[in-house]
Amino acid sequence: MRSRLTVAQLADLAGVSPATVSKVINGRLDVGPQTRARVEEVIARHGYRRRAAAAGPTMPLEVLFHELAGPYPVEMLNGVQRVARRHRLAVVLSELQGGHVPADGWVEDALARRPTGVIAVFSGLTGEQATRLRARGIPLVAVDPVGECAPGEPVVGADNRSGGLEATRHLLALGHRRIAVITGTPGTQSSRARVAGYLEALAGAGVAADPRLIRVGHFQVEDGARHTRELLRLPEPPTAVFACNDGEALGVYLAAAEAGVRVPEELSVVGFDDVFPSQWTVPPLTTVRQPLAEMAATAASMVVALARGQELERSQVALATRLVVRASTAPPPR
Amino acid sequence: MRSRLTVAQLADLAGVSPATVSKVINGRLDVGPQTRARVEEVIARHGYRRRAAAAGPTMPLEVLFHELAGPYPVEMLNGVQRVARRHRLAVVLSELQGGHVPADGWVEDALARRPTGVIAVFSGLTGEQATRLRARGIPLVAVDPVGECAPGEPVVGADNRSGGLEATRHLLALGHRRIAVITGTPGTQSSRARVAGYLEALAGAGVAADPRLIRVGHFQVEDGARHTRELLRLPEPPTAVFACNDGEALGVYLAAAEAGVRVPEELSVVGFDDVFPSQWTVPPLTTVRQPLAEMAATAASMVVALARGQELERSQVALATRLVVRASTAPPPR
Repeated sequence: MRSRLTVAQLADLAGVSPATVSKVINGRLDVGPQTRARVEEVIARHGYRRRAAAAGPTMPLEVLFHELAGPYPVEMLNGVQRVARRHRLAVVLSELQGGHVPADGWVEDALARRPTGVIAVFSGLTGEQATRLRARGIPLVAVDPVGECAPGEPVVGADNRSGGLEATRHLLALGHRRIAVITGTPGTQSSRARVAGYLEALAGAGVAADPRLIRVGHFQVEDGARHTRELLRLPEPPTAVFACNDGEALGVYLAAAEAGVRVPEELSVVGFDDVFPSQWTVPPLTTVRQPLAEMAATAASMVVALARGQELERSQVALATRLVVRASTAPPPR
Repeated sequence: MRSRLTVAQLADLAGVSPATVSKVINGRLDVGPQTRARVEEVIARHGYRRRAAAAGPTMPLEVLFHELAGPYPVEMLNGVQRVARRHRLAVVLSELQGGHVPADGWVEDALARRPTGVIAVFSGLTGEQATRLRARGIPLVAVDPVGECAPGEPVVGADNRSGGLEATRHLLALGHRRIAVITGTPGTQSSRARVAGYLEALAGAGVAADPRLIRVGHFQVEDGARHTRELLRLPEPPTAVFACNDGEALGVYLAAAEAGVRVPEELSVVGFDDVFPSQWTVPPLTTVRQPLAEMAATAASMVVALARGQELERSQVALATRLVVRASTAPPPR
């Protein structure tokens, strides 16, 4: 895609008028399906040379969320807004209602808004959707991606493996040996890396991983509660739980309270995220802080740079996590 | 404003070209200040007749938030998205960084996006900003307004007085007589109405309001914690606290735990909002549910109707609240 073409050049190649090419580029629907397909094919093959430095209040940053629930989206939006204000860009919000890929009409609508670029948070585009943006020179950056990213695809995440490692080492250093983990949604990069850090810490301490203590969750409070109820009924229950997000940790608290098990005296709990209300729980939660707002701000800055035709220094960024020790962890009983 | 004028008519009156009038209508800045002022004046006097049924993915719903923090904005955005999806509208998000009125540049940027309409959540516009929208026929609806609304200005809220009344009556019915209240931000309509409900319930039960038990907060967790620490040190501490939002109620929990005071055995707590994580706290919080998503969805529907030139059946809507009894309330000790 080194030598992208102008509208006039694309029109010549497709054998249509420049106006028709413009309509297809901007997602307008008043073009017949066959003509549209021919123009899309030419755009995909050659690429459209968008004017650089496209920006301003009418060229939004498009932000895609898999769902609007809990404290996670607000943190992310804070980071996007910070960059949007600096560049005077509008922020357009789309929600996938729990899915991880937008519905068909989304691309047309987004193209019609001539966006500065797209930020996909814990979600992604289909290959075809991504190709259509790329061919038009519209940058796409993933934040906290769900699945694997294509090589060279810009992506911002957190150092989740280090976070899982640090959380588990903290528990090991307190003397815990029976440490359970409640994972996040299977197949998500963030969950996989956090569990990898947990396993690495156990191995480093010569503690054998016990499959009964590895529980599959989906980043929901209910998962933390359900698994903790079961864990506390084991013949040898764990003395500590590493929950792969703070929501699950809330569930651990709830199940422990139901069972009359005190946190941290009888059960230590570590979460992940450090979002509302982790510092305000009783007891305040020890957790791995992941800089969600900074991650989103970094992605937004990358989108703006790409829209201006700048090269990124690095296209794959993992921001550091750090353990915040509060009051939910203590040495094991006895 | 019965007979709004076309661009051509406005241009004649202002003595400028129709192109200049269009620029001013759409917030473009490439018009000299004197010309701009003259055109603004003519628009404000006569009004611009916008084409009705303005809608589509390029004409966004503009949503203004005073800040992006805690669970409140996500609930509101959920309601707006629901309506936006139905009408295939983009949602553009602006944040006032804790302020309640947008900065000067905001109106120009919003006008340049030719919005379907504006939803101001727990915020408002200056009189001048509102006038500029109104003169262009761009609808504005307030949700959970901070201050007083102008007569006839469309507004959606919750029945906060009933909520405060029901919360306090619940505590009275359990036998409480020393019931503290932690207010929300002074001057906000919602806080004032919740406290009015509290006072009405006390009066109805023949319980004199004790000024030492009425504490001024700002809807923050810290307020709940700080005031509860002081309340528990009174010679006659309260046996129950009505917190004017769930965040403050989390603070009450924290201060009670610090003091070794058990909830609900020694101190009952009622919150307001019923947002994350109220159902997951230990113990789960008794609170007044305010339908935030429904409020925002109602406002978005009103904006769409007004943009289509429809009359609203009612321009001032207060949605019902209801008490959700969980485990943080019980009869007073002894």
